Amino acid sequence: MTEHELQLGRTVGIAESPEKAILDRVPNPHPDTFYVARFTVPEFTSLCPETGQPDFAHIVIDYVPKNWLVESKSLKLYMHSFRNHGAFHEGCTIDIAKRLIDLLDPHWLRIGGYWYPRGGIPIDVFWQSGPVPANLWLPDQGVAPYRGRG
Amino acid sequence: MTEHELQLGRTVGIAESPEKAILDRVPNPHPDTFYVARFTVPEFTSLCPETGQPDFAHIVIDYVPKNWLVESKSLKLYMHSFRNHGAFHEGCTIDIAKRLIDLLDPHWLRIGGYWYPRGGIPIDVFWQSGPVPANLWLPDQGVAPYRGRG
Amino acid sequence: MTEHELQLGRTVGIAESPEKAILDRVPNPHPDTFYVARFTVPEFTSLCPETGQPDFAHIVIDYVPKNWLVESKSLKLYMHSFRNHGAFHEGCTIDIAKRLIDLLDPHWLRIGGYWYPRGGIPIDVFWQSGPVPANLWLPDQGVAPYRGRG
Amino acid sequence: MTEHELQLGRTVGIAESPEKAILDRVPNPHPDTFYVARFTVPEFTSLCPETGQPDFAHIVIDYVPKNWLVESKSLKLYMHSFRNHGAFHEGCTIDIAKRLIDLLDPHWLRIGGYWYPRGGIPIDVFWQSGPVPANLWLPDQGVAPYRGRG
Amino acid sequence: MTEHELQLGRTVGIAESPEKAILDRVPNPHPDTFYVARFTVPEFTSLCPETGQPDFAHIVIDYVPKNWLVESKSLKLYMHSFRNHGAFHEGCTIDIAKRLIDLLDPHWLRIGGYWYPRGGIPIDVFWQSGPVPANLWLPDQGVAPYRGRG
Amino acid sequence: MTEHELQLGRTVGIAESPEKAILDRVPNPHPDTFYVARFTVPEFTSLCPETGQPDFAHIVIDYVPKNWLVESKSLKLYMHSFRNHGAFHEGCTIDIAKRLIDLLDPHWLRIGGYWYPRGGIPIDVFWQSGPVPANLWLPDQGVAPYRGRG
Amino acid sequence: MTEHELQLGRTVGIAESPEKAILDRVPNPHPDTFYVARFTVPEFTSLCPETGQPDFAHIVIDYVPKNWLVESKSLKLYMHSFRNHGAFHEGCTIDIAKRLIDLLDPHWLRIGGYWYPRGGIPIDVFWQSGPVPANLWLPDQGVAPYRGRG
Amino acid sequence: MTEHELQLGRTVGIAESPEKAILDRVPNPHPDTFYVARFTVPEFTSLCPETGQPDFAHIVIDYVPKNWLVESKSLKLYMHSFRNHGAFHEGCTIDIAKRLIDLLDPHWLRIGGYWYPRGGIPIDVFWQSGPVPANLWLPDQGVAPYRGRG
Amino acid sequence: MTEHELQLGRTVGIAESPEKAILDRVPNPHPDTFYVARFTVPEFTSLCPETGQPDFAHIVIDYVPKNWLVESKSLKLYMHSFRNHGAFHEGCTIDIAKRLIDLLDPHWLRIGGYWYPRGGIPIDVFWQSGPVPANLWLPDQGVAPYRGRG
Amino acid sequence: MTEHELQLGRTVGIAESPEKAILDRVPNPHPDTFYVARFTVPEFTSLCPETGQPDFAHIVIDYVPKNWLVESKSLKLYMHSFRNHGAFHEGCTIDIAKRLIDLLDPHWLRIGGYWYPRGGIPIDVFWQSGPVPANLWLPDQGVAPYRGRG
Ligand SMILES: [Ca+2]
Ligand SMILES: [Ca+2]
Ligand SMILES: [Ca+2]
Ligand SMILES: [Ca+2]
Ligand SMILES: [Ca+2]
Ligand SMILES: [Ca+2]
Ligand SMILES: [Ca+2]
Ligand SMILES: [Ca+2]
Ligand SMILES: [Ca+2]
Ligand SMILES: [Ca+2]
Ligand SMILES: [Ca+2]
Ligand SMILES: [Ca+2]
Ligand SMILES: [Ca+2]
Ligand SMILES: [Ca+2]
Ligand SMILES: [Ca+2]
Ligand SMILES: [Ca+2]
Repeated sequence: MTEHELQLGRTVGIAESPEKAILDRVPNPHPDTFYVARFTVPEFTSLCPETGQPDFAHIVIDYVPKNWLVESKSLKLYMHSFRNHGAFHEGCTIDIAKRLIDLLDPHWLRIGGYWYPRGGIPIDVFWQSGPVPANLWLPDQGVAPYRGRG
Repeated sequence: MTEHELQLGRTVGIAESPEKAILDRVPNPHPDTFYVARFTVPEFTSLCPETGQPDFAHIVIDYVPKNWLVESKSLKLYMHSFRNHGAFHEGCTIDIAKRLIDLLDPHWLRIGGYWYPRGGIPIDVFWQSGPVPANLWLPDQGVAPYRGRG
Repeated sequence: MTEHELQLGRTVGIAESPEKAILDRVPNPHPDTFYVARFTVPEFTSLCPETGQPDFAHIVIDYVPKNWLVESKSLKLYMHSFRNHGAFHEGCTIDIAKRLIDLLDPHWLRIGGYWYPRGGIPIDVFWQSGPVPANLWLPDQGVAPYRGRG
Repeated sequence: MTEHELQLGRTVGIAESPEKAILDRVPNPHPDTFYVARFTVPEFTSLCPETGQPDFAHIVIDYVPKNWLVESKSLKLYMHSFRNHGAFHEGCTIDIAKRLIDLLDPHWLRIGGYWYPRGGIPIDVFWQSGPVPANLWLPDQGVAPYRGRG
Repeated sequence: MTEHELQLGRTVGIAESPEKAILDRVPNPHPDTFYVARFTVPEFTSLCPETGQPDFAHIVIDYVPKNWLVESKSLKLYMHSFRNHGAFHEGCTIDIAKRLIDLLDPHWLRIGGYWYPRGGIPIDVFWQSGPVPANLWLPDQGVAPYRGRG
Repeated sequence: MTEHELQLGRTVGIAESPEKAILDRVPNPHPDTFYVARFTVPEFTSLCPETGQPDFAHIVIDYVPKNWLVESKSLKLYMHSFRNHGAFHEGCTIDIAKRLIDLLDPHWLRIGGYWYPRGGIPIDVFWQSGPVPANLWLPDQGVAPYRGRG
Repeated sequence: MTEHELQLGRTVGIAESPEKAILDRVPNPHPDTFYVARFTVPEFTSLCPETGQPDFAHIVIDYVPKNWLVESKSLKLYMHSFRNHGAFHEGCTIDIAKRLIDLLDPHWLRIGGYWYPRGGIPIDVFWQSGPVPANLWLPDQGVAPYRGRG
Repeated sequence: MTEHELQLGRTVGIAESPEKAILDRVPNPHPDTFYVARFTVPEFTSLCPETGQPDFAHIVIDYVPKNWLVESKSLKLYMHSFRNHGAFHEGCTIDIAKRLIDLLDPHWLRIGGYWYPRGGIPIDVFWQSGPVPANLWLPDQGVAPYRGRG
Repeated sequence: MTEHELQLGRTVGIAESPEKAILDRVPNPHPDTFYVARFTVPEFTSLCPETGQPDFAHIVIDYVPKNWLVESKSLKLYMHSFRNHGAFHEGCTIDIAKRLIDLLDPHWLRIGGYWYPRGGIPIDVFWQSGPVPANLWLPDQGVAPYRGRG
Repeated sequence: MTEHELQLGRTVGIAESPEKAILDRVPNPHPDTFYVARFTVPEFTSLCPETGQPDFAHIVIDYVPKNWLVESKSLKLYMHSFRNHGAFHEGCTIDIAKRLIDLLDPHWLRIGGYWYPRGGIPIDVFWQSGPVPANLWLPDQGVAPYRGRG
C-alpha cells in the first residue's frame, strides 16, 4: 500500500485533496503489545461544501496499532489536504477515521472531532471502530466543553 | 415529515411556539456507523409559566443517528422558538429530546439541561432515551458544576 | 401529605426547625420517563450541636422522580430551616435525603454534602438510596476537591 | 424621576422595549463613601436588528454610587426589556450604561458586554464614563477570554 | 475599648446582633512594618431586611495594621453575629469595614463582598478606606467572576 | 474607501489574498464615546512563506473607534483571505493591525497574535498603535500561556 | 477499645508517635445506611527515615462506616502524631488506613496519599480495603495531577 | 538482580544509555496489600533517532507492587539515562514500562507518555501490562489534554 | 557572617529553632543586573504558640539580590527549623523576610505567607521591604484565593 | 556577526556548549513599529554544575526588536546547546537574555525562567533589560505558580 518512499525527510507540498494525500506507515515496534497511541490535531481546517467558507476543528485520534504505526509527518500532511476541500462535520470526522483504518488495519480506533461553533452551536462528533478492547487503558480525551461567553 | 423545503439558505423568522417551529433533517452520510453527534446550545431562553419572567439554560444534546441528521440551522431556529413561550425546567428539557426523537428516529439520544439558578438553586436535568448502546463512545458532557460565589 | 396550599406565590418565613418546615411536591410532567433532576444548594448552614457555632455546606441532590417533583421554592425554605438547628455532618446530610424520599417516593435519590473544613479537615458525605437504576444517565457532581492553601 | 411606586414587591411583566422599562433607584446608605457596586448579568438577550435572530451577552456593570443605588429587581426587569427588541452589540452595551447614568448620576460607571460569537467571532465592548476615580478599588471583571474549541 | 478579657480560649455563643458582638484586638508584633493581613471569610450569612430570607456572601478583608491586629476568633464570632440580622448588601459590606476601622485604627483597609445571586444577578461590593498606601504590596483578591451556568 | 456595497447580506467567496479582500466599515453609533471593541478570532490560518506549510493563530484585536466600526462579516472574510497566502508571524500580525487602522482611522488599536508552536516554540506578537488613551478601560486579553505537555 | 474519655472538648498535645496517638470513635447515626464519609487532610507531614528531613503529603480518606464514625478532632491529632516520626511514603499511607480499619471496622475504606516531590518526582499511593461495595456512590478524589513547572 | 549496593546515598552520574543505567529495588513493606504507587516524571528527555534533536515528555507510571518497590532515586537516574540516546515515542514509552516489569515483577503496571508536540501534533502513549486487577483503586492520571494556542 | 562551611554537600539535621538554623549565601553571579529570584516554599509548618497545634503555610519570597544569593539548600533547612517552634502568622511571615534581609542585604525583598484556614478563615500576609525598585519586572505571585467548599 | 549561512533549511546538530551554538538573526519587517515578540520555550534542560544532574526549566522571552529578529530555528538550537552543560539557575537565565541582547540589540528584552523544584522549592528568575518602553503593550507571562501537591 505504501510502496512509495516515505515523505519523512523530504519537502512535500499540500495535497489537492484528501484522496490525493499520501499517508505513510512504519512498523510497530511492539506489535505484540496492546497499547494506545493518541494524536492531537489542533490545526485542522476544511471548507463548508454549501458556502465555501472555512470550518475549523480540533481533532483527537486514539488507536491500538497492530503491525503498523502511522508516520506522523504524513498524518500532518494528510490533515492539511482538507484545507481547500469541502467537508461536512459529521461525515468528514468519520472519513478520517476510516482512512486510517484502511492504512493501518489497527486493532481498534477512536476519533473525536470538536468543531468550532456555527450559528452559536458547536458540533462534536465521536466514533470508535468497535468495542473498546478488553484490558486496554484509554484515558478520556478530556477536551473542554464549549461554553459560549461569560 | 419534512416535505417543506429546507430552511437552510433562506431567511426564516422566529416561530411563535415550539409547536410551530420546523425542524429539518438531512440524510446521515454514515448510516451504518454507530457514532455520536453532540450539539451544544449555550443560547437557550424560555419564559416561566408562572411568573412570565425569562429563564435561561445551557443545553447539550448527544445522539446516535440512524438514517437522519438534524439540520443544524433548523435546530437553532427550533431552540429560538421557546423564546416567548412558557416552559417548566424538567418538562421542557425532556420535551426537546422527544421532539428530536420524533424527527430523527435515532438509535439513541441524551439531553442535559443546565438551568440558571432561581432562588439560589440551579436545576440540571439529565435524560437518555434508553441504555447507552453497546460499544458506543460517549464522553462526559463535562459542564462545570454550579458554585455560587467565592 | 401536602394538603396545605403550595408555598409558591406566598411569603413564607424560615421554619423553626427542619421538622416544622413544609416541603411541597408537584406532579411529575413525565412520570413514564426515567430522568434525573439535580438541585445544587450552595447556601446551606446549620449549627454545630456541640458548640453552637455555625457550620456551612455545599449540597447537591440528584433524584429520579416517580409521580412527584419537589417544588423548588419549598426546597429552598426547607434548607433554610436548618439555620438555627444543631446538626452533625454525617447525620444531617442523610436526614435531608431521607426527608425527600419520604415526600417524593422517587425511583432513586443521591446526595452529596460538601462541608466546609473544621480543624483544617473538610468532611464530604456521599449517599444514594440504592443501586443506580439501569440505563440512567447521571453525570458526576464534579465538586472541586478541597486543597487548603497554595 | 422615580415618582412611581417601586416595582419591588409587586408582580411586573416584561416591558415591550427598553424605553418603556422602568428603572428604580433607592437611596445610597453610604453616600459619603467611595465604593463600587458590581452587577453581573449572565442572562441578557436581544434581537439582531438586521436578521431578527436572537443575540446573547454576558454583561457586567461597575459603578460608584453618589446619592442613589439602582434597585436590583428593576435592573433585572430593565435587562429583560431587550428581549424582543433589536440592538447592535456596540451601541446596545453603551446605551445600557448611559441609561443607568441618567437614572443614578453616579460618580462613575463602567460596563463590559461580552457577546456570544457570530460567524466564529465574539465581540466584547468595554466602556467607562470617565477616568477611574482616584483611590477607588476596582478589581478586574475577569471574564474568561473566548477560545473556540479545543 | 477592649477592656474585657479576650474571647480566645473561652466558649462564646453567637451574639444577637453585630452591635452586641465583641471584636478583640491584640498588639501588632511589627508596628513599624507596613504589611497587609488578608482574612478570607467564605462563611458569611445574614437575612434580607425586606423578606427575612437568608443571604450569603464570600467576604475578603485586607488591612494594614498600625498598633493592633484583629484577633481572629473574635472576627469569626463577629461575622457570625449577622446570622439572624437584616442587612442590605451594599450597606452591610461597608459597615463591616467601618467597624474594623473603629476597632483597629489601621493605616488602611479594603473589603470585598461577593454576594450570592438573587434574581439571577450577583452583587459584588468593593471599598477601601483611602488611597492604597505608597509602597504597599497588595495582591488582587482574585475571586472568580460569576458565570451562571454552562 | 468603501464605496462598494456592503458584503453583509450577500454571499461572498474567500479572496485570493489579503490585498484583494474587502473590509467594510459602518458608522460608529457612539462617535463621542471613548470605548473599546474587542474581536476574538480563533480561526486564523496562513501559509509559511518558506515551506508552504500551514500556520495557525488565535488573534485578538482591541480598538477604540472614531467615526467607523469594522463590519464584522467583512472582518471574517478578510481574515479568511490569508488562508492560501504566505505570511511570517511577526510581520503578518502587524500587517493586519495596520490594514484596520487604514480602514477605520481609530483613536487607537491593539493586536495580539498567538501563534501555534513550531519546533516546540510558540511565538506571540503584541502591538498597539500608540499609548493607551487616557481614561480608557481595557481589560487584559487573558489568553492562556502555552505550556507544552503535563 | 476507646474506653478513655473523648479528646473532643479537651486540650490535647501532639502525641510522640502514631502508636501513642489516640483515635476516638463515635456511634454512626445511620448504621443501616451505606454511605461514604470523606476526610481531606492537606496538612500532613512526617520525617524521612533515611535523612531525617521533612516530608509532606495531601491525604484523602473515604470510608463506609458500620457502627462507628471516627471522631474528627482525634483524627486530626492522630495525623499530627507523624510530625516527628520517620515514615516511608508507600508504607505510611497504608499504615494510616489500617489503623482506621482497626478502630472502626468499616464496611470499606480507601486512602489516597499525594506526596510532595523528591528528586523532581512525586509519589502518589492509592489503596482500598476491598472491592468497592455494590451500589455505593463514591466520587473520584479528583486531586490535580502534578505538573512540574510551566 | 540488584546485587550491587543501592545508589541511594551515593553520588552517581548519568548513565550513558538506558541499558547501562541501574535500577534498584527495595522490599515492599506491604506485600500482601494490593495498592498502587504512582510516579510522575515531568523531567524526561531523549533524542530523536532520525534527527538527533531533543524530544521531551511528561511520563506517569502506576504499578501494583508484589515483593519489590522501585527505589525512587534509581528511577530518577534511569530516566536521566535517556538524555543522550535516541528513542521513538511509541517504542520508548513501552520500553520503560517493560524494564520496570523486569525489575519488579509487579502484579500490574501502567504507563502514560505525554510527548511534547512535533509538527503541531503531540503524541500520547498509553499502555498497561494486563487487565486492571479486580478491586484495585486507580484514579485517572488526569494529565491535561493538549490545546495548541488560544 | 557565613564563615562556616556551606551546608551544601553535607548532611545537616533540622535545627532546633529558627535562631539556631544557619542560612548560607553565595556570590551573586550578576551583581550589576537588577533581577528577581523567586522561591516558592509549599512545605512550611510551625506550631501555634497558644495551643501547640501545628500550623501550615505556603510561602513565596521574591528578592532582588545585591552581592549575595541565598543558597537554596540552607533556605530549605531554615524553613524546616520552624517545625517545632511556636510562631504567630503575621509575625512569623515577616520575621522570615527580615532574617533574609539581614543575611543578604538585597536591593529589595517581598514575602507572601498563605496560611491554611483556622476557624474557617485563612490569613494571608503580604510584605515588601520598600517601594518596588524602578524598572524591575515582578510578576504577581498568583497564588489562588481560598474558596472554602463548593 | 551572522556572516555564516542561516541554519534554517539545513540539518544542524546540537552544539557542544552555548558558546559554540550559533544564533541567527533576520531583518525585522517592521523596524519602525514598537512591538513585542514572545517566545515560549517549555523544553529547556541543563546540568547542575555541582552534581551533574539534569535541571529543567520553562523559559519565556519577550523582546522589542530594533533591526533584527531572532531566527526561531536557531533559537531552538541555542537552547538545546545547554543540554550537556553546567548552569546555575539565576546565572543561566540571565546569560540567555544577554546573549540575545548581544545578537539583536533590541529596544528592550525580558526573560522569565521557571525552574522545576529541587529540594521541594522551585526558583523563578525574572529580569528585564531596562524600564518597560513607554507605550509598549506587554501582557503578563501568566505562568501558573507552583503548588506542590493537593
Ligand atoms: Ca451542516
Ligand atoms: Ca418550577
Ligand atoms: Ca463531628
Ligand atoms: Ca500547596
Ligand atoms: Ca453588527
Ligand atoms: Ca484552540
Ligand atoms: Ca437590595
Ligand atoms: Ca455562560
Ligand atoms: Ca520565521
Ligand atoms: Ca510542563
Ligand atoms: Ca523512599
Ligand atoms: Ca516518529
Ligand atoms: Ca492568631
Ligand atoms: Ca463557595
Ligand atoms: Ca544553586
Ligand atoms: Ca495542598
